[in-house]
Amino acid sequence: MTNEDEILEIYRPLFYPKTVAVVGASDNPFKLGYHALAAVISSGFGGAIYPVNPRISGEIQGIKSYRSIAELPEEVELFIYAVPDHQVLPSLKESARKKARAGVIFAGGFREVGQEGMMLQEKIIRVANAAGIKLIGPNCIGFFNTHGPINATFASPLSMMGKGGVSVVSQSGGMGTEILSQLQDELVGVSKFISIGNRANVDFVDMIEYLSSDPHTKVICLFLEGLDMGRDFLLRTKARSERKPVLLCSFGYTEKSSSLALSHTGSMASSEMIYKGAIAQAGIFQVKDSARMVRLAKALEMYGPLQGTGIFIETHTAGPVIAITDICERGGLSLPDLDDEIAREIQTFLPPHAVAANPLDMFAQAWTDTSLYIKAADLALRQDNITCAVAVFATGMGAGPLFPVKEFADLSRKHGKPVFICLIAPYLFPEEARSAQENGVVAVNSAERMGHLLVDLANFSKKIAGD
Amino acid sequence: MTNEDEILEIYRPLFYPKTVAVVGASDNPFKLGYHALAAVISSGFGGAIYPVNPRISGEIQGIKSYRSIAELPEEVELFIYAVPDHQVLPSLKESARKKARAGVIFAGGFREVGQEGMMLQEKIIRVANAAGIKLIGPNCIGFFNTHGPINATFASPLSMMGKGGVSVVSQSGGMGTEILSQLQDELVGVSKFISIGNRANVDFVDMIEYLSSDPHTKVICLFLEGLDMGRDFLLRTKARSERKPVLLCSFGYTEKSSSLALSHTGSMASSEMIYKGAIAQAGIFQVKDSARMVRLAKALEMYGPLQGTGIFIETHTAGPVIAITDICERGGLSLPDLDDEIAREIQTFLPPHAVAANPLDMFAQAWTDTSLYIKAADLALRQDNITCAVAVFATGMGAGPLFPVKEFADLSRKHGKPVFICLIAPYLFPEEARSAQENGVVAVNSAERMGHLLVDLANFSKKIAGD
Repeated sequence: MTNEDEILEIYRPLFYPKTVAVVGASDNPFKLGYHALAAVISSGFGGAIYPVNPRISGEIQGIKSYRSIAELPEEVELFIYAVPDHQVLPSLKESARKKARAGVIFAGGFREVGQEGMMLQEKIIRVANAAGIKLIGPNCIGFFNTHGPINATFASPLSMMGKGGVSVVSQSGGMGTEILSQLQDELVGVSKFISIGNRANVDFVDMIEYLSSDPHTKVICLFLEGLDMGRDFLLRTKARSERKPVLLCSFGYTEKSSSLALSHTGSMASSEMIYKGAIAQAGIFQVKDSARMVRLAKALEMYGPLQGTGIFIETHTAGPVIAITDICERGGLSLPDLDDEIAREIQTFLPPHAVAANPLDMFAQAWTDTSLYIKAADLALRQDNITCAVAVFATGMGAGPLFPVKEFADLSRKHGKPVFICLIAPYLFPEEARSAQENGVVAVNSAERMGHLLVDLANFSKKIAGD
Repeated sequence: MTNEDEILEIYRPLFYPKTVAVVGASDNPFKLGYHALAAVISSGFGGAIYPVNPRISGEIQGIKSYRSIAELPEEVELFIYAVPDHQVLPSLKESARKKARAGVIFAGGFREVGQEGMMLQEKIIRVANAAGIKLIGPNCIGFFNTHGPINATFASPLSMMGKGGVSVVSQSGGMGTEILSQLQDELVGVSKFISIGNRANVDFVDMIEYLSSDPHTKVICLFLEGLDMGRDFLLRTKARSERKPVLLCSFGYTEKSSSLALSHTGSMASSEMIYKGAIAQAGIFQVKDSARMVRLAKALEMYGPLQGTGIFIETHTAGPVIAITDICERGGLSLPDLDDEIAREIQTFLPPHAVAANPLDMFAQAWTDTSLYIKAADLALRQDNITCAVAVFATGMGAGPLFPVKEFADLSRKHGKPVFICLIAPYLFPEEARSAQENGVVAVNSAERMGHLLVDLANFSKKIAGD
């Protein structure tokens, strides 16, 4: 058994459990245990589900329930503890006797609340380690795996998240939710999402090792508030970040924000400089904010790094391209001039007054005759110094032509170069954006976001090339 | 008649016309003239609409049509020219004879395409000026006024834009569309939107003067790619920006982006330094990107400037608050400590382990019992050094409790201080965001966006206070 297979097997009962028990399951929608059970059910989990509640006999949410963990009819792999802090330890001990292999603890009241909670957390860790139980939490919103499928959070709507290759590990449940919202807005498919909380016996680096071995994960996104880093973290992460992109967004370095980070999950706030240096050494790519992390993850999942810094941009409307070009040129990308021969060919089908150049403005004619986009990009992508093509299109929101997403996606495959679509439209009209997702093309709904994505992707690619 | 009334009357036939003619109107959805007429109809315009098309007799889109401008049965105030470049001048001359007062020219092919186009544009300006016609364009996507109502673009979906107090003037139609998309995503109500194009005889400063006089406009947003600025612009704008906030987003200073800006609307690219200096002198507040401009405009419309730099933040989830606090502290805002007495009162209703502090983390209890948000903010807002309150809430997306938006909005009125809600949810689940809009409270759907908004608002407020 390779190290890779070992890692996958260690966390298999967590992410791909055969059986799940929800301790504290309830029929009362004002209880956490109601939402925890509803989430498991809504995810379409294929194995046996065992609701446990000492005060209920018969059924909970239509599923046969048990009054205690001891009464469960078989060994259970994953336990979801939807119970208050003081019930966690006894429940954990009972589930250890049922050969539990993994658990999720939502409750707060552990390391983050001081000495007493710290001691309780230590007891939990000892029990879990002795029994070989891998724990997510405490003080978290759980995890889900679209490829299981299993939703071990207390939010059923997360079962609607699209399936894909981006995995997220967040120290904070709230920021995890924010990242999930952004993934949803940007139509990015998710593999695993883990709200890691107090990290009882599963830490960031464990998840980085697992996700870098997980065949369903293409890009790993992290949200941190601080980190107890050591030589171990740096070495173990570095070995993994060379295989798959590991992106990071983090906050909590100013006076009040760092003291809140300390009380939140009990992390020591480290100095920003030391922290950033260590992050870079570990091969982790730090982004400016979580929205940019999500878009970069989507681009890396679809295309991997860029092979150069020259881009071609085409449009029917100049303004957004001025914004993208400004941002890209400041960010170290270039717009190479078109080769004479290619320019001559493009010129043949341009409308009057339009000039074959990069960026290429084809005026309103390209909005009504969208085939101009395909013809021009097909020619420009022949140039060696052009590494990708970007089409800018103001959508009609149902009142005008649609961008020819499929034909544009085909160009990417034909030339072996990434293509990007900047579809100017509200988030509420995602018709072409959905089509882009289905055709494996990155679409972004704002010129400025498009520019920042290209810059982030170029910087990530330079870092990889320099390694 | 005051100067203000004069300005309002000059542009009254443009924004509040009594009659509108659509030259080039069509029943063919592949023609611009189809969309131009459909837009006017969809806006619910209350006056007479006159479709004009020499090749059609009878009706166009169900409205009696005319074969020429000369045949129109009465004088018409606003002419929408949905015709190609070479038909603009003859149409304009004809409409002058029908006592046209205002016009919109969509076609490109004028100043932006070189000497020939420049001369054509000069001819148009001479005719319009002689006849007293105010022109939007050429080379633009038109304008709309939700308070008219009149949609003089070629995009009917823009008739669905919410009515409000934010007006937008964009040099670029494409970036104008992007800003409109963002206004829609952020549920910001619009007063006037003007895609100003080549600025034949209506320039930015004219629109700044008009909008600063317009009682329906509370905040003015500009998107520029360059500007032929002179003493006149600076003086005229300065006089106006003192009355109402004038926000600016602009691009086009790098090599390729500035050359594109030059060819786009024929603007001279000025040096970035000179440009920014002049902008500041004119009292215009420059923002980093159009999404931040839109959110700042919304906050200024609802609340006006902040009266101080101390903020209070409360939450059930620490992570997003760590992000907001980090961004705010870096941006010059502070989180004042709670006064002893206020802290003691807040402590009485906090859950175990929670500490009365700023930022205030009330753990999961505040998610299920949202009245804690109201009680705590009601106390914190009593402090003189706290100028606003920010509540952070991860929405259940239909599966959990809703934030008590109305009660929180009432606090704002009670204390005379702004309140902000950071509702962590995708753009596609705007239930509480809509409720916030109805209750006159600013809601933002991401912690990082919330932080940047507070910083932008504080910087704007400092600039105003320093004037």
